[in-house]
Amino acid sequence: MNFIIKDEFFTRYQNLVTGTVIPYQEKIFRDEIPGTERSHAIQNFAYAAEMVETGSPSGEFYGFIFQDSDLAKWIEAVAHALALAPNPALEKRCDEIIHYIARSQHPDGYLNSYFTMKAPDKKWTNLCEAHELYCAGHLMEAAVAYAQATGKNTLLDTMERKAGHIYARFVTGGAEGYPGHPEIEIALMKMYAHTKNKKYLELAGHFINVRGVNPNFFYEESQRRDWCVWGMNTQDTEYAQNNKPLRELTEATGHSVRAVYLYTAMADYAMATGDDALKKACKALWENITEKRMYVTGAIGSAYEGEAFTADYHLPNDTAYAETCASIGLIFFARKMLELEKRGEYADVMERALYNCVLAGMELDGTRFFYVNPLEALPGISGVTKTHRHALPQRPTWFACACCPPNVSRLLASINHYAWGMEKDTVYSHLFIGGELDLSASLGGKIHVTTQYPNHGKIEYTFIPNGGGEMSLTLAIRLPGWSKNTEILFNNNKIEFNNNLNYAYITKKFAHGDTITLHLDMSVRQIYATGKINANSGKIAFSRGPFIYCAEGIDNGGDILHLSVKKDGKIETKDFDPNILGGITPITAEGYRAKDSGNIYSFTPPTYTPCEIKLIPYYTWANRGLNQMRVWLPLAQVER
Amino acid sequence: MNFIIKDEFFTRYQNLVTGTVIPYQEKIFRDEIPGTERSHAIQNFAYAAEMVETGSPSGEFYGFIFQDSDLAKWIEAVAHALALAPNPALEKRCDEIIHYIARSQHPDGYLNSYFTMKAPDKKWTNLCEAHELYCAGHLMEAAVAYAQATGKNTLLDTMERKAGHIYARFVTGGAEGYPGHPEIEIALMKMYAHTKNKKYLELAGHFINVRGVNPNFFYEESQRRDWCVWGMNTQDTEYAQNNKPLRELTEATGHSVRAVYLYTAMADYAMATGDDALKKACKALWENITEKRMYVTGAIGSAYEGEAFTADYHLPNDTAYAETCASIGLIFFARKMLELEKRGEYADVMERALYNCVLAGMELDGTRFFYVNPLEALPGISGVTKTHRHALPQRPTWFACACCPPNVSRLLASINHYAWGMEKDTVYSHLFIGGELDLSASLGGKIHVTTQYPNHGKIEYTFIPNGGGEMSLTLAIRLPGWSKNTEILFNNNKIEFNNNLNYAYITKKFAHGDTITLHLDMSVRQIYATGKINANSGKIAFSRGPFIYCAEGIDNGGDILHLSVKKDGKIETKDFDPNILGGITPITAEGYRAKDSGNIYSFTPPTYTPCEIKLIPYYTWANRGLNQMRVWLPLAQVER
Repeated sequence: MNFIIKDEFFTRYQNLVTGTVIPYQEKIFRDEIPGTERSHAIQNFAYAAEMVETGSPSGEFYGFIFQDSDLAKWIEAVAHALALAPNPALEKRCDEIIHYIARSQHPDGYLNSYFTMKAPDKKWTNLCEAHELYCAGHLMEAAVAYAQATGKNTLLDTMERKAGHIYARFVTGGAEGYPGHPEIEIALMKMYAHTKNKKYLELAGHFINVRGVNPNFFYEESQRRDWCVWGMNTQDTEYAQNNKPLRELTEATGHSVRAVYLYTAMADYAMATGDDALKKACKALWENITEKRMYVTGAIGSAYEGEAFTADYHLPNDTAYAETCASIGLIFFARKMLELEKRGEYADVMERALYNCVLAGMELDGTRFFYVNPLEALPGISGVTKTHRHALPQRPTWFACACCPPNVSRLLASINHYAWGMEKDTVYSHLFIGGELDLSASLGGKIHVTTQYPNHGKIEYTFIPNGGGEMSLTLAIRLPGWSKNTEILFNNNKIEFNNNLNYAYITKKFAHGDTITLHLDMSVRQIYATGKINANSGKIAFSRGPFIYCAEGIDNGGDILHLSVKKDGKIETKDFDPNILGGITPITAEGYRAKDSGNIYSFTPPTYTPCEIKLIPYYTWANRGLNQMRVWLPLAQVER
Repeated sequence: MNFIIKDEFFTRYQNLVTGTVIPYQEKIFRDEIPGTERSHAIQNFAYAAEMVETGSPSGEFYGFIFQDSDLAKWIEAVAHALALAPNPALEKRCDEIIHYIARSQHPDGYLNSYFTMKAPDKKWTNLCEAHELYCAGHLMEAAVAYAQATGKNTLLDTMERKAGHIYARFVTGGAEGYPGHPEIEIALMKMYAHTKNKKYLELAGHFINVRGVNPNFFYEESQRRDWCVWGMNTQDTEYAQNNKPLRELTEATGHSVRAVYLYTAMADYAMATGDDALKKACKALWENITEKRMYVTGAIGSAYEGEAFTADYHLPNDTAYAETCASIGLIFFARKMLELEKRGEYADVMERALYNCVLAGMELDGTRFFYVNPLEALPGISGVTKTHRHALPQRPTWFACACCPPNVSRLLASINHYAWGMEKDTVYSHLFIGGELDLSASLGGKIHVTTQYPNHGKIEYTFIPNGGGEMSLTLAIRLPGWSKNTEILFNNNKIEFNNNLNYAYITKKFAHGDTITLHLDMSVRQIYATGKINANSGKIAFSRGPFIYCAEGIDNGGDILHLSVKKDGKIETKDFDPNILGGITPITAEGYRAKDSGNIYSFTPPTYTPCEIKLIPYYTWANRGLNQMRVWLPLAQVER
């Protein structure tokens, strides 16, 4: 099953990633952009290679202890980009970088530029903070992707040796511990899927099985070492999800990226092994996140403090942490849950996180990124006060800690892998993206998907059996929760369909040119949050298709804080406008503009003037300068 | 002018302070309460005395570097309590404590138990963090109050010597610097008012004049020292209000207690010297606080981070810092502004802070205290998540940093000093408290005030001239901003009055038994916040008289998050109920209870059931166990 995207919406994003983001980030990793924070990530490996080979490197390590992982994510993005379209020059440069990495490996398989250069005697003494396993994981993911895209195994061989080193230490050697930042578990499952070497499955399972069994491991480790990276509180066991054995977890806690990376691996491992207890924990964690701890944009992580989940229904809008990487991790988790169980809600959440939080993480031109994606921006407060330092109202050009930008790249460059699923002769259409699905090897043909989704609701699947015969299969199409009325047509005639857990299953022998057409209801929906979320009391949000909308100051006279939406007022979908914000479908809603006394507190009620509230898709916010922004708007009925 | 309170409301509070709070805190200072955080504040002075006298103390210092100040505030509270009613046993014990303090003074006048015991070589090397001038200030305030209440000058003499030591260092000696935590400026003004020694005025002026002229002083100081207390960021000059020369300040910034203590002293000094530039700065700061940075409860300080002001209109309800001490400081500032200029708004704010934030700072039984007074409490989040650790939903029994409890004590024990003002033959009635105002020495008589305020709106002033003659004076009565219709009667006949800046001026020769009766309009008022405060969008609050009201879970079926107030709905004032919460006048408002789908987000609007929302005065919240609480409630109009 291979899917090539040909789609107005995502082709643009993939071109951005290949044409702008990857080259820009390469320049950053090569320290070639003046005035931008130095990365040094490539040079670190070059020096580490000299250190391993000669013992006397010609320069010093620079950057965070996890600097290797930034480059690893970029290599993975490059691999996905090369899979989309050949680029021999880029591939050659990437091969050279990989060569440095391979040469930096020690004879025993150990590989990490920080420890090689800065602290060779401190290896494996600080699993809590030092990100050794995390960096190894990202390099393994890159290795698998690069091997799959190019057929070249230098990095994969290197990382297999590294995995062997880790296996020897933790499994054969019986060393205690588990990673401070989960990630390698995902990577090992990918290594296993690609190589079929069961040792990687076993090692992933090992880290899953031992985590939290001794919740005090990080504390005990801290007592044995005389150094630290950040001086983390090793007794906060919820932070890194080591408070309990993982099969007992029911609440998503702590650092939200760590959490969803871990849960992704748990789901993957549960599927590979049929581990029901783990499956059950994954389901409980999924429900806790999506039913109690997720923003309407698919963002997660309510607090800057610990970049973390906090408590059920605590979802502040202006101080949200809502890290781009966390929503990317939620997409990983959703995809694995979807493999475990074909339920539309998993793909609904995947879509919600992708089209809202993740896309908002990148400026439309691909050169700036948000770490934090708040649901309300208040110029003068957001990014300014100590409470809102993290919640910037505009995307900066760089980050010293550059985890999010390459994470967006690798996801968008590989988004074709998220659109479809397959089980025997059932093909699952999870995300609605135009392009060509090649099933020649398995089901004897192709499916062409034509659509202007997400701006329009029509998705057409055209069947092209090999050699003009027939394709016998079940097409299972997700029925999105937001589509009130969904129609499915076969060769332009409406058909009935079974809805099983929000997938429509259509079993047919498809002849050449047969079409299945999906009509999704793109009418605007008003969203009501449960009253338990104190931040959204008396407010509503708007969505259309997969997009959550927001109001920005620039479209609304510079001030949206005095706006309220008229209860049961008129809502209009404007025509798709290709000329604004890269092409959007604006919405207007009837509302009021309050004019208050101007006093901070007053006994005089404000007067209300009817007005039109202009709304844009959330992912396009902050592309037109400094602005107020709100997803949740107060609802009012002023006339009697 | 002497005012003895005889009043249902404040007599109860003064009895609480004298009967419960002062004895309880004495036990804490004597480390006699098992299971409670050790204070050691008395013992510290005893050891310091031994250190000064013999060089070999029999024990060690314990506590914060500003531990002396806790005891100082308590001594001040004791002084006020002794002024209210004699208590020879307490006075004797207090004399003994003062004796330790006096004996701990060095021959050169220096006095501070921490530095004497722990760091004699580090004196005056860390003005930024070490609170030497702050502790001295509180002891000076205690000394003046104790001298005024008892006529005993031991502590005053001691602190005059200490003031001389400071004067010699900073004025005569020319040492650079100013206090990290303003406070001594207030104290020096009190010393000056009591002793008439102009050196104290000069020293207060010195610290006011030099502050912020070199905004880098704390940073430069930090470069010269090799020790720190907390490792404060000495380059954050807004934190301690040293960013600019004080006469140039226009925005209230930084640590809110430091800010209002400083502004209080500035206003006091401006009045004493006629310094117009300083007066103008005070007015600008007052306006910035009260028009842009104050909660409706009179609380200030929007952020836990730095316990600080943040930005205009940033007033989050659930994460408010809103420290009790800061509102006490705001009361100090208001009183000084009121002396500068007779404007009702100063007294309005003083009253707002007193009857709401400050009273809420203490449990009704006087044994528990809030540091932080949020306007919304969310059990499971408040006091629990990292974002809300500071915003406890119930008052704890003790604090390691015990600044607020004795501050409440000293304010409530001296509240009689805040009720009245006098200028020539005009007597200003700022706060409406029952009791007896003795003007025998100045205006030849007394005024008896009879009232059941704040629960009822009638305040009766009865004139009792000395020896049955007449009292010729102007009674200036504050016309509170919240009273929509205010009537004034002379001997039960309605009279016209001039309203000058919200004071009614009534000039008469009052005969024995003449009465002025004030009828304030106690009808419930709905309060609208400006739209600029994002946290209050679409919400309203309720007040009656000086009280801001709130809804608590216990009165509303355990859940207030699903409640909204009906726009233009019926609001009822219930009868005063002496049996609940120490006696309150409850309010009910017509509203709705929303029943939502239970899903975190839903396309289905909630259904609304009409209900009665029960409201109680904010100062009584959190007296009945763990509860949701909200001051600002969403406003809705559900029916068409």
